[in-house]
Amino acid sequence: MSRTILIEKKILEKNDIAAARIRQKLIADNTVVVNIMSGPGAGKTTLLEETVRRLAGKINVGVIEGDIATDNDARRVERAGAEWVVQINTGGACHLEAGMIERALETAPRGMQLLIIENVGNLVCPSSFDLGDDWKVVMASVTEGQDKPKKYPGMYRKSHALVLNKVDLAPYVNVSPGLFVKESLEVNPALKVFLTAATTGDGVDEWCDWLASLKKRPASV
Amino acid sequence: MSRTILIEKKILEKNDIAAARIRQKLIADNTVVVNIMSGPGAGKTTLLEETVRRLAGKINVGVIEGDIATDNDARRVERAGAEWVVQINTGGACHLEAGMIERALETAPRGMQLLIIENVGNLVCPSSFDLGDDWKVVMASVTEGQDKPKKYPGMYRKSHALVLNKVDLAPYVNVSPGLFVKESLEVNPALKVFLTAATTGDGVDEWCDWLASLKKRPASV
Repeated sequence: MSRTILIEKKILEKNDIAAARIRQKLIADNTVVVNIMSGPGAGKTTLLEETVRRLAGKINVGVIEGDIATDNDARRVERAGAEWVVQINTGGACHLEAGMIERALETAPRGMQLLIIENVGNLVCPSSFDLGDDWKVVMASVTEGQDKPKKYPGMYRKSHALVLNKVDLAPYVNVSPGLFVKESLEVNPALKVFLTAATTGDGVDEWCDWLASLKKRPASV
Repeated sequence: MSRTILIEKKILEKNDIAAARIRQKLIADNTVVVNIMSGPGAGKTTLLEETVRRLAGKINVGVIEGDIATDNDARRVERAGAEWVVQINTGGACHLEAGMIERALETAPRGMQLLIIENVGNLVCPSSFDLGDDWKVVMASVTEGQDKPKKYPGMYRKSHALVLNKVDLAPYVNVSPGLFVKESLEVNPALKVFLTAATTGDGVDEWCDWLASLKKRPASV
């Protein structure tokens, strides 16, 4: 197994070098990069559609969509009015890597204030890969159940914020949003928490205000 | 990258050898092995609790629970009346491997007719690892959205059956179970389909009848 671990380390090192180049490239325009991660079907794309609609005309937003297959999500976000969208298909890989982001950015316009990356739907692997992002967000759906933060602690620990979505479905499932948040904060007390129902718009304004307020982190952090 | 691919191939070869040993071990008792996979929160454990309750006294069922962390699920299934349950914690790994199953089986009693493995909640990586299973089942929640089969085609292609769960929530989300099934069958027309609501018990009897009817596959397949 030691050889395998060595190779994994090399992949992560190569990833980190690409992530550093992304930071270098985006510092000129002061582009804030947000990496949104979740399991499949938490509602990332629906939240992004609503986000892009609300921020249009206020700040210049670009979006990178990550999926194993299909370009559905990029088309949805484009229709919502995003100024620049790229779909990455990983062709089987369970996460985005910095090299994929770097290639996608070759066609990016100048002057993006905010770049949102929607990662592949997977609560495990994406958290291990630095995408040159400033802020990592874990998104969850109330319907997943409040046991998930402690069952997927790595993702919750590495994130700066939690978006707990589909709170409108809480009355129909045996899940308490309050307990879900409590369990999340026990894994990572520093999480900034948003309760949303992306399909009804509840809580989306607060999330957008936070996004618009984010500052770029110093490259050394 | 060629070196990385070589190492991946070696990991899979090692996995396949352990899977073959599991088949060899379980053939004596004619134990049918079912590997259930899904994204986080599709309802695997709730379905398993209901399954164990219904099959108790009819067939001898063992369960292996896979999670990154916690032993919640094993305790839940044990309380439901499973005769033998083992919790595997992968400690970060995003899937179960045959070697983990082989070690868990060291404490297994003789005479198990059905062994159900609940994989780590992840719609991508678990499908690549043969666990010595006879039947692979993909489980999905209606709330995930009907675009998922085509966005995670590998998992749907490798599975023999689909359990589409939480159909009771369909009225509250913009998802049609019928369309979800249609999209799934377009990816894999051979899927045996079950519509369930594990929390209300709807459809669980049909699923249990199917489980009880399953035959062991010949080791060469």
